[in-house]
Amino acid sequence: MSVLIVGSTALDSIKTPTAENLRLLGGSASYAALAASFFTEVRMVGVVGDDFPARYLNLYKRRGIDLAGLQRVPGKTFHWSGEYESNMNHRRTLLTELGVFETFTPTLPKNYRRAEFVLLANIAPSLQLHVLDQAQRPRFVLADTMDLWLNIAMPDLLRLLKRLDGFVLNESEAAQLTREENVFRALKRIHKMGPRYVIVKQGSHGSILSSPAGLFICPAYPIEKLVDPTGAGDSFAGAMMGFLASRGGSVERKIRQAMIYGSVVASFCCEGFGVTRTARITRRKIEERARALLKLTAVP
Amino acid sequence: MSVLIVGSTALDSIKTPTAENLRLLGGSASYAALAASFFTEVRMVGVVGDDFPARYLNLYKRRGIDLAGLQRVPGKTFHWSGEYESNMNHRRTLLTELGVFETFTPTLPKNYRRAEFVLLANIAPSLQLHVLDQAQRPRFVLADTMDLWLNIAMPDLLRLLKRLDGFVLNESEAAQLTREENVFRALKRIHKMGPRYVIVKQGSHGSILSSPAGLFICPAYPIEKLVDPTGAGDSFAGAMMGFLASRGGSVERKIRQAMIYGSVVASFCCEGFGVTRTARITRRKIEERARALLKLTAVP
Repeated sequence: MSVLIVGSTALDSIKTPTAENLRLLGGSASYAALAASFFTEVRMVGVVGDDFPARYLNLYKRRGIDLAGLQRVPGKTFHWSGEYESNMNHRRTLLTELGVFETFTPTLPKNYRRAEFVLLANIAPSLQLHVLDQAQRPRFVLADTMDLWLNIAMPDLLRLLKRLDGFVLNESEAAQLTREENVFRALKRIHKMGPRYVIVKQGSHGSILSSPAGLFICPAYPIEKLVDPTGAGDSFAGAMMGFLASRGGSVERKIRQAMIYGSVVASFCCEGFGVTRTARITRRKIEERARALLKLTAVP
Repeated sequence: MSVLIVGSTALDSIKTPTAENLRLLGGSASYAALAASFFTEVRMVGVVGDDFPARYLNLYKRRGIDLAGLQRVPGKTFHWSGEYESNMNHRRTLLTELGVFETFTPTLPKNYRRAEFVLLANIAPSLQLHVLDQAQRPRFVLADTMDLWLNIAMPDLLRLLKRLDGFVLNESEAAQLTREENVFRALKRIHKMGPRYVIVKQGSHGSILSSPAGLFICPAYPIEKLVDPTGAGDSFAGAMMGFLASRGGSVERKIRQAMIYGSVVASFCCEGFGVTRTARITRRKIEERARALLKLTAVP
């Protein structure tokens, strides 16, 4: 089964303590779609301007991503620029040029509307809601978000939460959303806002799922060389949804395994600037790391 | 088999955002010994003054802790006072009155010297070394430490590291000791300093073991009500060593399970001020949480 992914498609200029790269392929939909493409067919909805490099379009295509929902319009592609602090735990935005994103309305091609697995990658909750309005009875809808929307679009976000099956956010966002520092109490509060599946991402400390079957603690895959964490969360969500869509069956039974794959693809993402490392991995390498990750929490 | 535990025995005055408690039973050896006592016989070495409340001595005794190595001398018991910030992740020391601890020299009673499992709980590395000088061919020596010793006693600590089988420290201490922000690279560097077993504690994110058999990621037991984290690390190390001593056999084969028990007892410790919660737990409750903790990382 295919997965429908909606989000931002962007050019990212990223500065880390050791290097700087300009106008890399970025955006939540790009990361998520590439990550999902290792598991199943991906249909991507987004928008790019006429400055969007052909080589990035070719990269999507090489990964078999269906681009019928990618709008190409006159103007500049969304450009984000950010800088990481020395320990890579914090970053600050240097520049945000919305470009063609400013007037973007995600429109689902007709054959996308019956998608069963829908990933609303990080974009404005109003746009995520607009996509849901077009989807016809999806089976599992997962949304990601960011602190910006908690700050400026909380009413939309709360409306969105009521319509989700799953929601993924990071630890500080969970605390901000619920005014609850304890992550386990925060998870309970988020369930009351709508989603039955809530995943809190904790960066290098992994992630926590709270679902009808209880809690699951998913470790991060250990990496010794963190090159660029941009897109790790998007990759996590993308791989997870790609895997879930590929398997069918009960989400509850597959979601823990899906998160392991999410962790693995996120780890590759962090080992290169932008999507450069992700674009080069293979399913075999993913499987190797997934096996290794499962062993890391095994108790004989 | 019994475990020998050396460390501080203290009175702690602890302030959290919601409560304050004065002159509680504290000290690394107290926490570790109580935690270990649920698994095996414990022999404790420490020092208290003549102001040390009889009820605390009775608590040790009720838990079957052998006090032949606990020196009782004229003067005041070591008194520490600290205050936690709102999210409990940081604390500051308000007061340190060394009292009888100032002239403390840990001396092993003759029948302690052949101890096979030795926990050097957090005290000055010079004292930890002094204990090792008296121990006769221990099978497994684990030491804990704190940032203070990294700041003021690094040469002693480096000497100690060469003589350890295992070393446990928290994430920021590992970074300080190795000047390496990446925890997996830090682990490798610490191995080069001596110990074959290195455990990095990550608070509510659990802990990581690096051993000859590879890495192990041990989750923290989820707690919704963090009352007081004081002593959680000591409890973790104490329970771990208590369990290892109780089982015999290969440390490599048992240490992952031992860490699960460490996580569990640490979780109880955090649910009450000082040792109040730990003192009331039972082995049955420990086993319940250990089973639950193992399930939290299980992938069907």
